[in-house]
Amino acid sequence: MNIAEYMQRIGQQARSSARPLASSTTLHKNAGLQAIAQYLNDQQDQVLAANAEDMRAAEAEHLDSALLDRLELTPARYEDMLDGLQQVIDLPDPIGEILGMRYRPSGIQLGQMRVPLGVVGIIYESRPNVTLEAAALCLKSGNAAILRGGSESLRSNQALARAIHAGLQSSGLPLHAVQVLETRDRAAVGRLVSMPEYVDVIVPRGGKGLIERVSAEAKVPVIKHLDGICHVYIHADADLDMALRIAMNAKTHRYGVCNAMETLLIDSNLAASMLDRLVPAMQSQGVELRGCPRCLELCPNAMIPATEDDWRTEYLAPILSLRIVDHVDAAMDHIDTYGSHHTDAIVTNNLDIARRFINEVDSSSVMVNASTRFADGFEYGLGAEIGISTDKFHARGPVGLEGLTSLKWIVLGNGQIRGG
Amino acid sequence: MNIAEYMQRIGQQARSSARPLASSTTLHKNAGLQAIAQYLNDQQDQVLAANAEDMRAAEAEHLDSALLDRLELTPARYEDMLDGLQQVIDLPDPIGEILGMRYRPSGIQLGQMRVPLGVVGIIYESRPNVTLEAAALCLKSGNAAILRGGSESLRSNQALARAIHAGLQSSGLPLHAVQVLETRDRAAVGRLVSMPEYVDVIVPRGGKGLIERVSAEAKVPVIKHLDGICHVYIHADADLDMALRIAMNAKTHRYGVCNAMETLLIDSNLAASMLDRLVPAMQSQGVELRGCPRCLELCPNAMIPATEDDWRTEYLAPILSLRIVDHVDAAMDHIDTYGSHHTDAIVTNNLDIARRFINEVDSSSVMVNASTRFADGFEYGLGAEIGISTDKFHARGPVGLEGLTSLKWIVLGNGQIRGG
Repeated sequence: MNIAEYMQRIGQQARSSARPLASSTTLHKNAGLQAIAQYLNDQQDQVLAANAEDMRAAEAEHLDSALLDRLELTPARYEDMLDGLQQVIDLPDPIGEILGMRYRPSGIQLGQMRVPLGVVGIIYESRPNVTLEAAALCLKSGNAAILRGGSESLRSNQALARAIHAGLQSSGLPLHAVQVLETRDRAAVGRLVSMPEYVDVIVPRGGKGLIERVSAEAKVPVIKHLDGICHVYIHADADLDMALRIAMNAKTHRYGVCNAMETLLIDSNLAASMLDRLVPAMQSQGVELRGCPRCLELCPNAMIPATEDDWRTEYLAPILSLRIVDHVDAAMDHIDTYGSHHTDAIVTNNLDIARRFINEVDSSSVMVNASTRFADGFEYGLGAEIGISTDKFHARGPVGLEGLTSLKWIVLGNGQIRGG
Repeated sequence: MNIAEYMQRIGQQARSSARPLASSTTLHKNAGLQAIAQYLNDQQDQVLAANAEDMRAAEAEHLDSALLDRLELTPARYEDMLDGLQQVIDLPDPIGEILGMRYRPSGIQLGQMRVPLGVVGIIYESRPNVTLEAAALCLKSGNAAILRGGSESLRSNQALARAIHAGLQSSGLPLHAVQVLETRDRAAVGRLVSMPEYVDVIVPRGGKGLIERVSAEAKVPVIKHLDGICHVYIHADADLDMALRIAMNAKTHRYGVCNAMETLLIDSNLAASMLDRLVPAMQSQGVELRGCPRCLELCPNAMIPATEDDWRTEYLAPILSLRIVDHVDAAMDHIDTYGSHHTDAIVTNNLDIARRFINEVDSSSVMVNASTRFADGFEYGLGAEIGISTDKFHARGPVGLEGLTSLKWIVLGNGQIRGG
């Protein structure tokens, strides 16, 4: 296979599908998604069989158990995947919404219309359910999709692609509205991220390595987040019960997620009483604690010293770094210096301090008296999310259907001319 | 001067000014802009003298007359510049606006807050008035600015920078909120566009060459438009008087602007009667006509044949290409194939056709029965514009204060935890 020619063809097919898809009605897009659901339902055995083949090959290559777990499609996961599809069908269609329509002094009527971005390229690792999730979000938002999954899940993805194509075909949507790449060649990714004439945005989903690689090579915009170094700051006027509950949830609810807390900042005024309760609670969950010198002084046997590196590390593990600070300014300085602008929370009942934290912390989600774990497309009511963005440009934070759209200006007149 | 070290220092100073500037009140920012206006007023003689020096040097180097014209600051232009600054002071402050605040089922309150992008780098050519315009728009939207003007206007820009700094200092805004580069070295531009740690977005303002160069090198997002190949399509159900008025305005109101019409598409049903009136009107304005074969058949002596290249050319001159098409689909295909997704208009009284054109034409501004010349920040009520974007990501079309902002999520709770 000549990869350059292959990707050129894929790109052209996506671009030429994007225009008819963009002007498809909500009913038509939903009918297409419903047809895909039906085919996926009918072809469950074939998809699971393809996945079993992928699993056998991966085991034979001794891939690690975390990867095998992500790769596996069980009947229960298959059902979850179909539930997720149904949720996307039920979401409101963002396309065509007209915002701020108003008359201008010249008599023209001006507004902004929400439109698809065009062609979305999604690059992901082993989880085959991303194939369906990404396809559904792109179709619903009127975007053509080019999907490139991990090479170990190629058979699973091809089986899913067959059901998706059958659904597109039977509903009369453009057949190339969703294309799943059929090659394991890494060069295909290099082409995908450098065809601005065919691809409008790239969404990498996976580990930091994948995202860094894609970002470095990309010649089209990328929706991404690299790190989730999230903080909770317990202010002097915090309710101790609430602070404990939020800190425990933010750290221990799930460890391997980007919105988990990695560093806890505690105001010096309540550090002693807070640590008295927090340390045993974290220890009972098996969380390793790494503290600043002042923390170590208060609890010399409960933690090891935190290094400069600790403040910059996304553990994604039962490890927590702790630091005592004297004021909200010191907390915000720490967050600004070491954070990743993902999600940061304060626990306080002081309105002035809460307002300052909200205004001054420059993160994609800023929270008062709530767990960082809420930074999530489902919790925010966006439906599924295609990713979380820590960039400031375009979409920021959880990216759902709206993040896959743009606004164009529309003008209605009755013959207006400039300067006339 | 070591450019790498110099730019590193400029970048750090901008980044550290961005946080205090972002949380400055509207009153404070307006007071700063007002102080700048006062210093500019007081220092007019010095600025004009610096500009006269730039002019003498440019004349000695035999720079072309168009460039000399753009470089010159006359007292009248100086007054216009100060008027523009006053308009920015009068614009509403976009920062801090909270959108869509709502309760979620978990009890958290969720909304989006409009915040500055952070640090904006602006690269422009000879016009010194851009220095003030860009500084004012960035300050008002809470963004630190790094400005790099054309080397031939360095003295003018430095004189303007002195007034800007005096205003910043006297009003207590961060002194490095606006920095004007003091070097003519091209390497400074290369650094400016590849410091994502210090610069959040680049806005190139100038000719296509500048924009292409900046885009190719940039490692940070760029707000740009490359071409303005704008179309007017006269549909079969158009009012002929209105069509003529709009076509004449779109082509002849100003030639060198990006929202001028370059190609006129005429429905075959009214081509003969339209050309009968349009051709002499364009000829009386000295507009050269280049037609498709069907146009040439109707008016063999009035035009020369249009080549494939003509459809892709932004003339920025009194030249118009003309094509007869059979249907709105043919018109939209032409626009999709040859256009630059800037601004395209239809003239029609047919509601169904107007709706299709608005929905299906993928341009930053799509117009019905109005001149393409309206695609402009002032006409759209955005106040000054920092540029026009033909990208789909982030801001699209005329970019004013709002295009220099982003939305972060904010969450207020009273102790909510996930899954709790």
